[in-house]
Amino acid sequence: MNDPRVQELFEFLRFPSISAQSSHKNDLQACADWLVTKLQSIGLESRKEETPGHPVVIGKTGRDPAKRTVLIYGHYDVQPPEPLAEWSSPPFEPEIRDGRIFARGSSDNKGQILSHILGVAEALQKGPLPVNVIFLIEGEEEVGSGNLPDFLEKNREELACDVIAISDTGMAADGYPTLSYALRGIAAMEVRVLGPSHDLHSGIYGGAVANPATAAARLIASLHDENGRVTIPGFYDAVQPPADWEREAAAASPLRDKDIAEQAGVTELDGEAGFSAIERIGARPTAEINGMGGGYQGQGSKTVLPAEAFFKISFRLVPDQKPEDILRMAGEHFEKHKPKGIHLEIEHGHGGAPYFFDPNSPDGLAARRALEKVFEKKPALMREGGSIPILTTFQEKLGCDSLLLALASPDCRAHAPNENFPVENFLLGIRLNQALLKELASIKP
Amino acid sequence: MNDPRVQELFEFLRFPSISAQSSHKNDLQACADWLVTKLQSIGLESRKEETPGHPVVIGKTGRDPAKRTVLIYGHYDVQPPEPLAEWSSPPFEPEIRDGRIFARGSSDNKGQILSHILGVAEALQKGPLPVNVIFLIEGEEEVGSGNLPDFLEKNREELACDVIAISDTGMAADGYPTLSYALRGIAAMEVRVLGPSHDLHSGIYGGAVANPATAAARLIASLHDENGRVTIPGFYDAVQPPADWEREAAAASPLRDKDIAEQAGVTELDGEAGFSAIERIGARPTAEINGMGGGYQGQGSKTVLPAEAFFKISFRLVPDQKPEDILRMAGEHFEKHKPKGIHLEIEHGHGGAPYFFDPNSPDGLAARRALEKVFEKKPALMREGGSIPILTTFQEKLGCDSLLLALASPDCRAHAPNENFPVENFLLGIRLNQALLKELASIKP
Repeated sequence: MNDPRVQELFEFLRFPSISAQSSHKNDLQACADWLVTKLQSIGLESRKEETPGHPVVIGKTGRDPAKRTVLIYGHYDVQPPEPLAEWSSPPFEPEIRDGRIFARGSSDNKGQILSHILGVAEALQKGPLPVNVIFLIEGEEEVGSGNLPDFLEKNREELACDVIAISDTGMAADGYPTLSYALRGIAAMEVRVLGPSHDLHSGIYGGAVANPATAAARLIASLHDENGRVTIPGFYDAVQPPADWEREAAAASPLRDKDIAEQAGVTELDGEAGFSAIERIGARPTAEINGMGGGYQGQGSKTVLPAEAFFKISFRLVPDQKPEDILRMAGEHFEKHKPKGIHLEIEHGHGGAPYFFDPNSPDGLAARRALEKVFEKKPALMREGGSIPILTTFQEKLGCDSLLLALASPDCRAHAPNENFPVENFLLGIRLNQALLKELASIKP
Repeated sequence: MNDPRVQELFEFLRFPSISAQSSHKNDLQACADWLVTKLQSIGLESRKEETPGHPVVIGKTGRDPAKRTVLIYGHYDVQPPEPLAEWSSPPFEPEIRDGRIFARGSSDNKGQILSHILGVAEALQKGPLPVNVIFLIEGEEEVGSGNLPDFLEKNREELACDVIAISDTGMAADGYPTLSYALRGIAAMEVRVLGPSHDLHSGIYGGAVANPATAAARLIASLHDENGRVTIPGFYDAVQPPADWEREAAAASPLRDKDIAEQAGVTELDGEAGFSAIERIGARPTAEINGMGGGYQGQGSKTVLPAEAFFKISFRLVPDQKPEDILRMAGEHFEKHKPKGIHLEIEHGHGGAPYFFDPNSPDGLAARRALEKVFEKKPALMREGGSIPILTTFQEKLGCDSLLLALASPDCRAHAPNENFPVENFLLGIRLNQALLKELASIKP
């Protein structure tokens, strides 16, 4: 592949910019410097800004008050590549096989953000852009974007914009244009289930004393009814049912249940009755056990009636559920259902509000037109099951919405060995950027 | 305390005969030698018999065919004393405080077995015993009596007897004569609950894939109904309900619910409706979770939908439940209740049949008369919640029943720091032995 654009992506991918590993601090600096040089070379004003963690890179056109302003967000840090033995080629030596670029960060997020940069570069060669553009490319996305909220707060004025564009998600199906318009929120808690003052002999006391492991299991089991619905009183009160257009969009999605089952490695899917798997993941709230433990976990058996057990639970939330309300309701539910002689210690974990953006808004429609023009297919509209808390932070700090335009393929293996990015998606991304900026420019303020 | 009998017990207690710790191998040998010398000194024929583990000590009178033969079983090995810091005096330096002898093994079982030896010694000083006596004192009780079944098999003829007497249990209440006539059986199993082929992101898949931790919890919860009854079909089919005299005996027991709650360190007891705590422990079968685990168990949260979870369960059984039947029924129950997309791997652990001996039999009545004579109180009749598999082995190999005559106090702290044995119980035990042998002799074959 002699395309110089692909060669540039290879350069970008060779930086082992692993934000989680402090030994790579200098690699992140070098990668940020490379980005600044790149942004300057295409005619943008660019600089690297230090933070308490890894630096943020800013690149921008001038600000023409007659034009709308689009902020394009991305990140240059990557996940650790381990386990190395499972890679078919070294993670930081990009290689093309079967039309895909294999390297850590190829999809997440270097390939996707570089396609936007190169889109702007190509457009600038033809003349001024139809919108003002600000690139905001951080180096801590894979470690929680801890320093970004402060950075946004401090640079509110400079970063002021009308809409945000992000390509950091996956397509509904290979080669299928996809606009993600919602993400679930999250509310985490840990419940310690305390019984006897010390581990008991299960023969001498078993039958007369509530077993904390059994009690924990019963509390977990009490969370769902036989239809897979969460039974916590009030849990669904604030849930907005999917609109008709959403159910249609979910039904029209090229993502099929069997794809989800295959990716998850299960023989059969399961979940809330009355909803498709896509709806269960995107449009419905959940209560998932992330971990549990109690009693003897070693080899063989030990006939103990344990003094305590615990479970960790996270709720995924949809509009308009509030993390703090859900945690309160769940705590009340558990207290009500604990058996005699059992006490609970409940600790609240992190929370984040769900995100929703109307894809039928002018900006949403503009994004959909751009996607359809470039991919020559009506884009799939998707609700994502995961949570990207930074979107809520963007809403709070900059007061505007994010368009999530997927370029990664569904089997991109982000965060896993053999991460890859189709060359075609990279090149389509370059065109998508130009189509998008044009469509967004057409909206009257 | 200058009583030479107590001084002899002190000598016995000073051997750190910890069977679980190989560094104490020689201490067990020395302790066995001490016992042989002791038994010989009182006029018995005695020897130490090596096994693949720690030796067995035999001591016996001659065998007069006109007399019944009583085998007295006990053990000279002890539990490890750890944690040492929690002992008020060193575990192998016996000390009397408030009328109790504090030392590892004081109750379990050196004090109790020595009282039988000294009882026989005193009787022999007055003349021939009314029965033939065989002492069988092993050194591996605390590590599962692994070599005893073979030893019984090989020495069947020499050990042939009419009845077995054992003092290795606890009284229903302090100073209260107690005959235990039943022990629960046991059947253990481990269930691995398998879902996705790998840990999943709980946001991206949560809601559409059965969660193995939740599935494990639901299987555990499915074991009991709201009345605390086990729901496995057929589980109670073979259970013999307690006879009227047993319910009366349980009601008359000096052991009160509040004592059990206090010992267990719980604010309230719980269990199967319709039965007292004593009945729940002794006369009713149970399904107890001994351990469980799945997903993330570290600090904080990790939003994983785990690929698998597991639980370890042990059933305590009562006559006429059979371990193999119960394990089969439980397996079928779990397979029937697993959710879609979940597979189970079930492994059977150890099993042991329940033990029951009729305390209204001639030997039972003889034991009760002996207890009443010495303690001047009607003895409590108790079903024990634990399991002593060796009793079933005695039935199989020697074809006779065991009388469990408790001498330990309820707060003897066996297996725990500050194990103790009231001096009074030790002296009463010496008298009990003589009364018992006399009463057992009175039964016509």
